[in-house]
Amino acid sequence: MKRILIIGIGAGDPDHLTLQAVKAIAATDVFFILDKGEVKHDLVRLRHDLIEAHARQPYRIVTVDDPERDRITPAYAAAVEDWRSRRADICERLFRDELADDQVGAFLVWGDPGLYDSTLAIVEEIHRRGSVRFDHEVIPGVSSVSALTARHRTGLTRLTRPVHVTTGRRLAEEGPSADDVVVMLDAHCAFADLGDEYDIYWGAYLGTPDEILVAGPVPEVADRIREVRAEARARKGWIMDTYLLRKTSR
Amino acid sequence: MKRILIIGIGAGDPDHLTLQAVKAIAATDVFFILDKGEVKHDLVRLRHDLIEAHARQPYRIVTVDDPERDRITPAYAAAVEDWRSRRADICERLFRDELADDQVGAFLVWGDPGLYDSTLAIVEEIHRRGSVRFDHEVIPGVSSVSALTARHRTGLTRLTRPVHVTTGRRLAEEGPSADDVVVMLDAHCAFADLGDEYDIYWGAYLGTPDEILVAGPVPEVADRIREVRAEARARKGWIMDTYLLRKTSR
Repeated sequence: MKRILIIGIGAGDPDHLTLQAVKAIAATDVFFILDKGEVKHDLVRLRHDLIEAHARQPYRIVTVDDPERDRITPAYAAAVEDWRSRRADICERLFRDELADDQVGAFLVWGDPGLYDSTLAIVEEIHRRGSVRFDHEVIPGVSSVSALTARHRTGLTRLTRPVHVTTGRRLAEEGPSADDVVVMLDAHCAFADLGDEYDIYWGAYLGTPDEILVAGPVPEVADRIREVRAEARARKGWIMDTYLLRKTSR
Repeated sequence: MKRILIIGIGAGDPDHLTLQAVKAIAATDVFFILDKGEVKHDLVRLRHDLIEAHARQPYRIVTVDDPERDRITPAYAAAVEDWRSRRADICERLFRDELADDQVGAFLVWGDPGLYDSTLAIVEEIHRRGSVRFDHEVIPGVSSVSALTARHRTGLTRLTRPVHVTTGRRLAEEGPSADDVVVMLDAHCAFADLGDEYDIYWGAYLGTPDEILVAGPVPEVADRIREVRAEARARKGWIMDTYLLRKTSR
């Protein structure tokens, strides 16, 4: 039986890799990389570095161009579903043609594979289609949320209180839905209009040499975050950032 | 300057340890263990095993009895605050008396130190008191939430949707606050009254040889979870479990 491993590799620091992930990389015959183009070249290179550091047997890396996502349509969810389906077509072909029956194929996923990542959904869609027989396993990783709070030396949760994890899109539409909210995938700095009852703990390129951390009451640091974010994004061609909002009593 | 490391060691599998945590353990002079008594003896032993496997220099383990928490008072938050303060008293003394000026002390924390763990809050309280000078660092770990969803091979988040992380106490009081809710610290199976529009992904002793996983529509599996939970808790003397609730369209 073919095996597919979905390996969480942590939030950017090569040392976020778990021993379980190290063993999984060492056991892999074929690494699948969906190349998102030059703008995310750093991320592809980091994956190659991890493979080189931890592979323990002959392996192949199969890189394919990631299909383009429709970024213009207002039907965001439908566009992403369609994109996932086309990625599933590509990966189905890879599982069939690039992996022998007793071999192990792997995806290296940033952060934790459970958190706003589509790899597992794609692998499950291929499994449901039934045209290629395989077993699959998920290897958890250090999420960008854990990396963020660790670098800011703050807890994610406060005593007995909940935390919500949401997207920039939803924060813009609905505002903070709890006193502690983690926001991911926010390209538009949806935090900027919040008042000084909110502290923000913001981080970009977490765990990498380019890491940037800013924290403080929102009205005091919002402009600075917008500036460093725009500057870094222009300089590097891409950005991955996330933040925690925390309502305080001042 | 003294250094204190708060090291996330993952959800129970020794291979959840990150390379960063391995290096941190290797750099530690004194490990601090708050012993919660025989009922959690397995957890203390697992910590000792990790230290033995990864220490690379002479080290000491300082074990102290964890103060008792008032588990009867209805003032839960106040009782935990009081307990934290007494733990801070103990740790302040340890930092002063058990650690030389250039030494590294460490706490090994289950899962990720940001998620419903009090170690960081205790260390910060000691820092604020100012009687012992030290620097501290947090090393993120694989959270029990990531371990749970990985073992169930399901995502934590669904496309564009939020996820809430809360406690059993709050779920009992407020019901599910979103379509996807992770519940921690639930000793009373607060999920049991939910209808069949909710699937549950439940896991106990995640990542350990005792791991138990149950998933399905709540009305179909609630009794089974209650039974295996009570049986395992009685047999082992302690339990750590968590679950994801997911509203489905059936």
